[in-house]
Amino acid sequence: MQTQLSASVPSPAASRIHHEGYRAKVISAEQAVQYIRPGNTVAISGFASAGTPKVVTPALADRIRRARAAGDDFTINLLTGASVASETERLLSEVDGIALRMPYQAEPTARGKINDGRMDYVDIHLSHVAQQVWQGYYGHVDVAVVEIAGITESGELIPATSVGNSKTWLDVAEKIILEVNSWIPEALDGCHDIYYGTALPPHRKPIQLTDVKDRIGQPYFRVDPARVVAVVETAAPDSATPLTAPDATSEAIAAHVLEFFDYEVRAGRLPADTLLPLQSGVGNVANAVLGGLSRGPYRGLTCYSEVVQDGMLQLIKDGTVRYASATAFALSAAGLDEFVRNIDFYREHIVLRPQEISNHPEIVRRLGVIGMNGMLEADIYGNVNSTHVMGSRIMNGIGGSGDFARNGYLSIFMSPSTARGGAISSIVPMVPHVDHTEHDVQVIVTEQGLADLRGLSPRRRSRVVIDRCAHPAFQAELHDYVERAEAAPGSGHTPHLLGEAFSFHQRFQQTGTMLAD
Amino acid sequence: MQTQLSASVPSPAASRIHHEGYRAKVISAEQAVQYIRPGNTVAISGFASAGTPKVVTPALADRIRRARAAGDDFTINLLTGASVASETERLLSEVDGIALRMPYQAEPTARGKINDGRMDYVDIHLSHVAQQVWQGYYGHVDVAVVEIAGITESGELIPATSVGNSKTWLDVAEKIILEVNSWIPEALDGCHDIYYGTALPPHRKPIQLTDVKDRIGQPYFRVDPARVVAVVETAAPDSATPLTAPDATSEAIAAHVLEFFDYEVRAGRLPADTLLPLQSGVGNVANAVLGGLSRGPYRGLTCYSEVVQDGMLQLIKDGTVRYASATAFALSAAGLDEFVRNIDFYREHIVLRPQEISNHPEIVRRLGVIGMNGMLEADIYGNVNSTHVMGSRIMNGIGGSGDFARNGYLSIFMSPSTARGGAISSIVPMVPHVDHTEHDVQVIVTEQGLADLRGLSPRRRSRVVIDRCAHPAFQAELHDYVERAEAAPGSGHTPHLLGEAFSFHQRFQQTGTMLAD
Repeated sequence: MQTQLSASVPSPAASRIHHEGYRAKVISAEQAVQYIRPGNTVAISGFASAGTPKVVTPALADRIRRARAAGDDFTINLLTGASVASETERLLSEVDGIALRMPYQAEPTARGKINDGRMDYVDIHLSHVAQQVWQGYYGHVDVAVVEIAGITESGELIPATSVGNSKTWLDVAEKIILEVNSWIPEALDGCHDIYYGTALPPHRKPIQLTDVKDRIGQPYFRVDPARVVAVVETAAPDSATPLTAPDATSEAIAAHVLEFFDYEVRAGRLPADTLLPLQSGVGNVANAVLGGLSRGPYRGLTCYSEVVQDGMLQLIKDGTVRYASATAFALSAAGLDEFVRNIDFYREHIVLRPQEISNHPEIVRRLGVIGMNGMLEADIYGNVNSTHVMGSRIMNGIGGSGDFARNGYLSIFMSPSTARGGAISSIVPMVPHVDHTEHDVQVIVTEQGLADLRGLSPRRRSRVVIDRCAHPAFQAELHDYVERAEAAPGSGHTPHLLGEAFSFHQRFQQTGTMLAD
Repeated sequence: MQTQLSASVPSPAASRIHHEGYRAKVISAEQAVQYIRPGNTVAISGFASAGTPKVVTPALADRIRRARAAGDDFTINLLTGASVASETERLLSEVDGIALRMPYQAEPTARGKINDGRMDYVDIHLSHVAQQVWQGYYGHVDVAVVEIAGITESGELIPATSVGNSKTWLDVAEKIILEVNSWIPEALDGCHDIYYGTALPPHRKPIQLTDVKDRIGQPYFRVDPARVVAVVETAAPDSATPLTAPDATSEAIAAHVLEFFDYEVRAGRLPADTLLPLQSGVGNVANAVLGGLSRGPYRGLTCYSEVVQDGMLQLIKDGTVRYASATAFALSAAGLDEFVRNIDFYREHIVLRPQEISNHPEIVRRLGVIGMNGMLEADIYGNVNSTHVMGSRIMNGIGGSGDFARNGYLSIFMSPSTARGGAISSIVPMVPHVDHTEHDVQVIVTEQGLADLRGLSPRRRSRVVIDRCAHPAFQAELHDYVERAEAAPGSGHTPHLLGEAFSFHQRFQQTGTMLAD
């Protein structure tokens, strides 16, 4: 899964706290977790592999383990940015320490507990998290644990390698524990844009951001010192995001996407050279698309996305990308070294924002973001399942995919046409869980091809999806399904045979493969 | 269905055209439709029962009928605001004149053709229509037919009883046919706010609207006179929206919603007195909720919605509502008379905007709109089907419900717990079509009760939905389904039994009722 970043030798931890009042609050992680009580709602920093607290959460897991050994119940409700470092998720799950988890996870132990009904999980759009916590949907936030890169002389907090929901956690939590991490390159100072203009209605104002590079906030977090109950020092690295070379399938998917961009430019529907701001998920396919862009005709592209991966640094370096806005880094050890060594260059081309802004409906719509996200499966009418294997077992969560698919300019979903060595088709008659409806899905891509669903009625979509995207091993059966559904009495706008809609999935559950005999 | 409004005696039609150039373009409807050719994409004004062209579209249906009688094929692609006057939809459908329909319909003849696969229909979010047409997803717009209340001396167009997409149609169409309708009360002049600040990315700017009452545009449409090929005069009334008194079921649903508002105010999650801007669909339940508000503690409420119905006039008159923003009227004959008689009062309290703005993600999110929409059915995990009966046959379309459910502050879906005299349950194990996913549905209401799904994991949601919302006749079977799904091996985050997920629907298809023996 994830490996530890080694990076450069940390500077002395104490030097990162330039404010006397906070220096006086330094205690150990073991002492700090005494502020967290059973039943508390705990909001921690972190977005994907970056910015998760390194020592307080393991100390909390230890405390919970000891409480359980003594026969005491001890669970918390855990709020985060998105997923957090696997180690954190695993430690807290192993001790059954999490009663409720929100808004995203991607770790096997936690996933197992959720799927066994032993951990409550609420899977919501990342753009809704801050708003819903402010609204009080998750009750009182008792404790925030936020990793930072340092504290300035005036008591402001220098954000870490992710921003996520940290601003909101600092705003709403009753008690705050700060983890000052001297492993974080000091050069990161100035890479963040923390916007303090959000509010609850009826007090909301327009967010005056009109270009990916606009800075509308300040470089540091504000915090009420009276609520900071503890400061903990550490010098522990982020988990590194492992790099895997794109495989042939990913390269094929990427090639279809890039050809589609060319087609849209020729049709006058996308600006030549610069396209529109790109959002892409994490993983092989996203990396392959980014890699392909550097070989294309585009210059001065922009990205308005959630994470900055290694590939993005290369694109910025060679001028393919002019500017990238995100809420977190997701770099390998080599990527982080590259970034730190050339920080003065990258700081002019990268900004990290709160996820409230990186995924904000207002901004995503205004900028006209091109959303590119992975999926588990799509059905013949263009509904997409991003989260639930066979309709019941959750994989990770919806994350920010819906923020970009719904409010963006173009909504593209990508997947290999098969999984498990060909036993699973990612194109099915009906998806047993819908995360993105037919109204929100415009383009579906597999290594087989690209289905452009814009302006098509469901009966036309089904042909395009099957012929362009399904693996040949499944095409005949999918066509047969559609033809019989259309021939049935009262076939309808979106013809389905309810008794057979999940035949692919049921066959897999019974025989281990979706392939017919 | 709809009846014809009688209203006041029309003033002479000619007097509404105060511009000489346009007076010279006046021709008959029969002549005007000669500008429409087979295969054209035709964009017409109209939103629900208001503002549909009255004479050009029937003349077009006649022309198509004669062409067919002569053995010629003649179809158009028809773009509108939402649904349009039933008569128009029916006449064009009866002659098989529509090849492709977008974005919403609510008329039996058209619906039948769509469900038989004889008319292509693309069912998209109303906030996406203008953008997607501008982007070119629906190709070249050949002709716009737009009803207006008059033409000013300087050649600007006074909008009609709906705005819908008329601004966009006037902007993009190659040829324009104007229908100047002297039936429209002249007093309507000044009730519209036509915003000309939208653009395609990368040229979009913040929309500076921060209160429901803000005017950010101008009262009239602009039009390029060179593209106006014909002006047609008429004095025909809108179809009136019939008023039906709320029944006991609607009143019960409304009572649960109003109690929920009180609960939210007490919890500090909604502002006392004024709540937040309300959006509500059309129909009995919506009327009952509005009616109930006038008996509640609220003063100075606002509405940010699609239509203004009779009930709204009463709420404005008694001070319950301070301001209503919409894109169309949906008034009865009596309602229109009331409006016209007191126009100077109402003009200070009502504005009609383009639907691009009434449903805009940016504005809906900023204002914190409370979305209240009807549904066909919901499943036990909170997924909502708004459009497809038994998963295949479309009813109307998604309309603007998704615009408000996704980007608003609260998302409420309402339905009686049963239909067809108790044979159909509106709470089912799994919906066979999803228009609003579990991520977008926060509250479900039937006359049985209200399910508040906020912050609940799927396994907790299922209990709340069944116990609060399902009709008692279906509760035991729903509980049994959930319990067996949870007990199955690998039950998962969202337990389903794929072989039984549609058992309610299949039983209805086989026996005419969802009720077990």
